[in-house]
Amino acid sequence: MSNSINIGIAGLGTIGCGVVNNLLRNQESLKEKYGLDFEIIGVSASNKTKKRSINLEDFNWYDDPIDLAKDKNIDLVIELVGGEKGIAYDLAIETINNKKGFITANKALLSTNGKILSELSCKNNVFFGYEAAVAGGIPIIKTLKSGLFLDKINNIFGILNGTSNFILSRMNSANKSFEDALSEAQELGYAEADPSFDINGMDAAHKLSILSAISFGEFPSLENTSVIGIENIQTIDHKYAKEFGYKIKLIGKSSLMKGGISKEISPMLVKKDGSLGTVEGVSNVVCINTDYNGTLILEGEGAGEGPTSASVLSDIVDFAQGIKSHLFNKPFDDLLDSTNNNEISKRCYYLRVFLVDQKGSMAKFTSILEKNGISIDQVIQRGDLHLKDEKNSTPVIILTYPVDSDSINSAFSELIKTDLISLNPIFLPVLKDN
Amino acid sequence: MSNSINIGIAGLGTIGCGVVNNLLRNQESLKEKYGLDFEIIGVSASNKTKKRSINLEDFNWYDDPIDLAKDKNIDLVIELVGGEKGIAYDLAIETINNKKGFITANKALLSTNGKILSELSCKNNVFFGYEAAVAGGIPIIKTLKSGLFLDKINNIFGILNGTSNFILSRMNSANKSFEDALSEAQELGYAEADPSFDINGMDAAHKLSILSAISFGEFPSLENTSVIGIENIQTIDHKYAKEFGYKIKLIGKSSLMKGGISKEISPMLVKKDGSLGTVEGVSNVVCINTDYNGTLILEGEGAGEGPTSASVLSDIVDFAQGIKSHLFNKPFDDLLDSTNNNEISKRCYYLRVFLVDQKGSMAKFTSILEKNGISIDQVIQRGDLHLKDEKNSTPVIILTYPVDSDSINSAFSELIKTDLISLNPIFLPVLKDN
Repeated sequence: MSNSINIGIAGLGTIGCGVVNNLLRNQESLKEKYGLDFEIIGVSASNKTKKRSINLEDFNWYDDPIDLAKDKNIDLVIELVGGEKGIAYDLAIETINNKKGFITANKALLSTNGKILSELSCKNNVFFGYEAAVAGGIPIIKTLKSGLFLDKINNIFGILNGTSNFILSRMNSANKSFEDALSEAQELGYAEADPSFDINGMDAAHKLSILSAISFGEFPSLENTSVIGIENIQTIDHKYAKEFGYKIKLIGKSSLMKGGISKEISPMLVKKDGSLGTVEGVSNVVCINTDYNGTLILEGEGAGEGPTSASVLSDIVDFAQGIKSHLFNKPFDDLLDSTNNNEISKRCYYLRVFLVDQKGSMAKFTSILEKNGISIDQVIQRGDLHLKDEKNSTPVIILTYPVDSDSINSAFSELIKTDLISLNPIFLPVLKDN
Repeated sequence: MSNSINIGIAGLGTIGCGVVNNLLRNQESLKEKYGLDFEIIGVSASNKTKKRSINLEDFNWYDDPIDLAKDKNIDLVIELVGGEKGIAYDLAIETINNKKGFITANKALLSTNGKILSELSCKNNVFFGYEAAVAGGIPIIKTLKSGLFLDKINNIFGILNGTSNFILSRMNSANKSFEDALSEAQELGYAEADPSFDINGMDAAHKLSILSAISFGEFPSLENTSVIGIENIQTIDHKYAKEFGYKIKLIGKSSLMKGGISKEISPMLVKKDGSLGTVEGVSNVVCINTDYNGTLILEGEGAGEGPTSASVLSDIVDFAQGIKSHLFNKPFDDLLDSTNNNEISKRCYYLRVFLVDQKGSMAKFTSILEKNGISIDQVIQRGDLHLKDEKNSTPVIILTYPVDSDSINSAFSELIKTDLISLNPIFLPVLKDN
């Protein structure tokens, strides 16, 4: 193929302009190292007059981004609009059907439409790069597709959302409340005005579905994924986790089980000094546990203009070099619909309740645990620790021995029906592999 | 190019047989994911009758490995013989000159002959893969070549030798002497009968020269590299480092300085809970610090049959897909001879001396430091801690304020001329970026 590439870019927010600037800044280097000549033929965005870090007059403006995909002079379309449907989706389909290369940073697009995108890109034999969609500047997609893991991947897990990791880090290190840590994240530009998807685990679930697809040869799916966000974590939970030697992190984990894949997003306790516990702020980390290559850990910036545009650039280099891989590393026909195995093996849990200050409540509480097969490894109850709004109850924190999730769910159901506790209890799994 | 590949393999030790087994085990998967058909046409090793985990009768035997490179039916030669000259070198040259693909796990070969190998492979436009040569199963070579770091790399550093990391880990965690930890490494198969290159830093220096070449566009060179091994670290050094909040690790670091590249292998103090301090046993870690993509950290198995053969396989996949890159990511003509800048910026040092028990020795000792511009941040001296063989001297441990290396060297020279100390003192830099 020719190494002179004509590029069209849709979406000129911070990331889009970052990609344009990064491309222009590296024009010489791209030519020297990869023999790559390129030209940005056209750009498109919803608002032409917005103040931007690039000069729009240097490029052809397209009112309708779909026209980028239709322009016969354009070889490669880069989609930085976002969203699982709408423009992003239409542009992807039109680009693939026109047999052009397509690059995106859009995890929702891939997670939601993985099956059709895999089918069409396979049929049309086009390049489809999405390194920037998962874990910012960490080359996790290329690594998973590199042939390094032809042999069995047992599980893949990590910290996949920078915003929630920032919030948890600040609650832990600066003793902030959830609300204050979130405000700080917003002030620093780490969280959107509406941070729901970062907080409730959905952003991490999108990313996990993509990692799981490549790792286990299935179509991305959220369907059978258990998703718990970080909304109910209190500052004191960090304090107690630390006493037990742990930190609380929002973990996404996908595991190969007998008969299916188990996918889970949940705040979990991870070893304070381990590979996940030491990842702070907006950083991301992905661990790949395999049969023959041990555990590979990749840690880096989770998002932002620099890492995201670096990842997009690395996709452009792949496109220029004619590197083609299947969307999820297997041909469309060989991918399976996501099969679920909810059976999570026994593990320890961190349990926090606010036990009302009344006679016998501790005995009643522990007997509920015992009845459900939950054995207590460690317990902390101190009279001096009350929540501001929970003056008549005392936090009791328990670390359990390994127990199955059914027992935990059953104990939870029973507990919330009693008058023993104020506020809902939380049960957080302790991550084994770290 | 055709995706049916005929492979020749030279060297059938643990790694060589691992590669053969890994290839055969993944035959179907390679076909499915990458459309790759292959056949192992021929094998060669120094000893035909040695007991091996593969059945030699399944392959053609070549008495002379060079004949693999000459065989017109072979597309790709994999060299797993080892050594910087001899068979490995001759085989590389012959293979490249015959315009075949070449894959190796041999860091010494690349580090020592990088210039000629770069020139020949560029001239003959051949594939040359060496993912397995640095940091076992960590895809550091591909990552550095991926276009992710077109923008400036400021420095690259990490733990590059698994054997020495195992020894330091065991001295630290199990309170073992250097000798006992080395014996344990040898019993477990983590250290060769002659472990000199692991211990004295040369193995790490070879690897660093390769990382530095790709990162900074220079030919690999050991010439201007400062190399200090771990032989002089005592068990008590780990104890004191820990008191200061650090661990001692053998670090390789290459930094872009004004006017050149600074390359250094040395035991250094790294934060106990940081990305390097938590890497234990035979694991490796590489950190890439950049202007636009933050710091990317890759951690995984440093060596062994599984990771090494996984890396070789990932090179085979690249070869099959026609992925070609320059040996050190730039054309031969654009690479520079290694230029050195010894000027290391000021940093803190850990200093340990055995001060002889005589009146005024502490005052004399500290005045030597002061005279050389070394200011003391923290100091530990305890009467109860003597080395078995150093009954008449007491360990004094100092953490300095930031100071330049000339001052350190000058103080060292002065100290060893006095009768103040028994045993040579050690000065270990404190790594800033971790």
